[in-house]
Amino acid sequence: MNSSTYWWESAPAMIDEDARAAAEARQGILTKPPGALGKLETLAIQLAALQGREKPRVDRVDITVFAGDHGVVAEGISAFPQQVTYEMVKNFASGGAAINVLAKSLGATLKVVNLGTVVEADELPGVVNQLLGPGTANFTRQSAMTRQQLDSAMQVGRATVMQCRQKDSELFIGGEMGIGNTTAAAAICCALLGVEAHTMAGPGTGLDSEGVSHKADVISRALAAHADQAKTPIDVLRIFGGFEIAALTGCYIACAQESIAVLVDGFISTCAALCASRLCVGSEQWFLYSHASAEPGHATILAALDAEPVLDLGMRLGEGSGAAVVVPILRQACALHSEMATFAEAGVSDG
Amino acid sequence: MNSSTYWWESAPAMIDEDARAAAEARQGILTKPPGALGKLETLAIQLAALQGREKPRVDRVDITVFAGDHGVVAEGISAFPQQVTYEMVKNFASGGAAINVLAKSLGATLKVVNLGTVVEADELPGVVNQLLGPGTANFTRQSAMTRQQLDSAMQVGRATVMQCRQKDSELFIGGEMGIGNTTAAAAICCALLGVEAHTMAGPGTGLDSEGVSHKADVISRALAAHADQAKTPIDVLRIFGGFEIAALTGCYIACAQESIAVLVDGFISTCAALCASRLCVGSEQWFLYSHASAEPGHATILAALDAEPVLDLGMRLGEGSGAAVVVPILRQACALHSEMATFAEAGVSDG
Repeated sequence: MNSSTYWWESAPAMIDEDARAAAEARQGILTKPPGALGKLETLAIQLAALQGREKPRVDRVDITVFAGDHGVVAEGISAFPQQVTYEMVKNFASGGAAINVLAKSLGATLKVVNLGTVVEADELPGVVNQLLGPGTANFTRQSAMTRQQLDSAMQVGRATVMQCRQKDSELFIGGEMGIGNTTAAAAICCALLGVEAHTMAGPGTGLDSEGVSHKADVISRALAAHADQAKTPIDVLRIFGGFEIAALTGCYIACAQESIAVLVDGFISTCAALCASRLCVGSEQWFLYSHASAEPGHATILAALDAEPVLDLGMRLGEGSGAAVVVPILRQACALHSEMATFAEAGVSDG
Repeated sequence: MNSSTYWWESAPAMIDEDARAAAEARQGILTKPPGALGKLETLAIQLAALQGREKPRVDRVDITVFAGDHGVVAEGISAFPQQVTYEMVKNFASGGAAINVLAKSLGATLKVVNLGTVVEADELPGVVNQLLGPGTANFTRQSAMTRQQLDSAMQVGRATVMQCRQKDSELFIGGEMGIGNTTAAAAICCALLGVEAHTMAGPGTGLDSEGVSHKADVISRALAAHADQAKTPIDVLRIFGGFEIAALTGCYIACAQESIAVLVDGFISTCAALCASRLCVGSEQWFLYSHASAEPGHATILAALDAEPVLDLGMRLGEGSGAAVVVPILRQACALHSEMATFAEAGVSDG
């Protein structure tokens, strides 16, 4: 099969350098010392380039949270029991989770997709069931996903983004819920970046140091066991990845292809962004990074992507929550950029 | 005169430790791993303690920007000409400055007080004239303020806060505009903290390295010239301080006495917070710190106050702008704290 037949290898959309230049010029004439708004200036300019307009906006924000379980939880790598994944899906459905509160405060749409939990999925309000299996397989014993499951998960992500495209979404946020998924993400990043497991294994939802050490051992063993097969990014994602990580990867690539700016959340989401950048070269130009996670390995993934997150609040929740917290900052950056008076308009002397 | 006759020496209000404990307990039962919301948790708990209620809110936010000119500008320490202070007051009046855009986006009230500019003040919409003189005196030659000017400036700050108290303000933000005021603030902080001028002198609105070096020399000379007089915090503020720095100091102390949480902005505002903490011991318990300024000396003042700002966006504009950018984060912290489901409510297993 020719590699060009995979949708995710199609080139990302071009960035609008004219809009970037126009936004840069505008920042230089607003009534403030040049550069005095710091990262708010660069964010507005970056959004202008991505949205192809001198004055960007992030009014229409779409959040999708993907849930899935992980077979590797059998190895005792999580502080929470596996049924919590589905219990949290129900919490999303009833509006009680952090991302519900944040989406409501932002006026953002929130969609929840269950890709496969160990607890059998009911029909729940606001939750789409796209079940690919009762969680992934235990990657210490076999590949986490079949190729069919991987393709389907990525396709679910792409379809999500195509719906956002039809609504003229101005910003896409992907979130995830999956007990065990810091272990999966750590394994993926170790394989893609060639770093040791202890670099990427962290406490996740709350392991103690002994638990973190055991988690690193589990990852190390799995990396060794799959070393012959885990040679390409797509195989790495299939062998270690969760359904939700694959779906996020599909989302991010589709956003880059469909000209939608992405606001990446934390550790798991940045792992998906790394996968996207390896599967679709240049897609990472469409990604903004919201926050530095408290999960220690996050800094390594961010460095590999040459990414500077906006915030560092010590968050480590997932669900897209860290990205949601950054949306008001992007909105303020856009408002300042669009609404401030210029030196000429205000009759203010420049420096 | 007995020192107890000064209003600013009256004790700050007590912090509500019961509300803090209740908020801490609530954070522990919300549907998330303990601590997973990072600083959003500690901010909600801190606001609960300051507001005396388990579920704090920051809906009613009051911003006041104080403007004043500085005689020390005659020494060539600013990248912008001195008339810009009043030009920016006019920009505030017509709604074109950064703080206007931010206040509007937050639904916050914005008041502007002109305490004395070198350009003669007209009546402007939304601007209160409380003129104490055509700027301060050049502190390289004499004290910046008379004792009468200092008392009046602090009293203007206090009166501002008493109005906020009547409106049940849930958060106070003070901002400032004054060409030359990083030089005044740097001199104050050098005198209070006993650090060298080159530690506190920075580029301000845009000096080059030669300009910064000259600014440090100007401050050094003034510190030496006033060494005999600048012995107490109130004298330091009078000798080097601007009208707007004194007014902010009065605001912050009054907030602490009247039980209003303060969100401190950047370099100048943190200098005023330092003055407040020295004039009214314990007042600093009422202060939250919004952002790390790009002005290099800011870190030294923050460290002296044992303060950890929420954001680091490389901002250095003043006007209260950095604090305004943090308000949505406080609001999100409060919304998460109040609206998320508990483990019991959601039927989610805890760890």
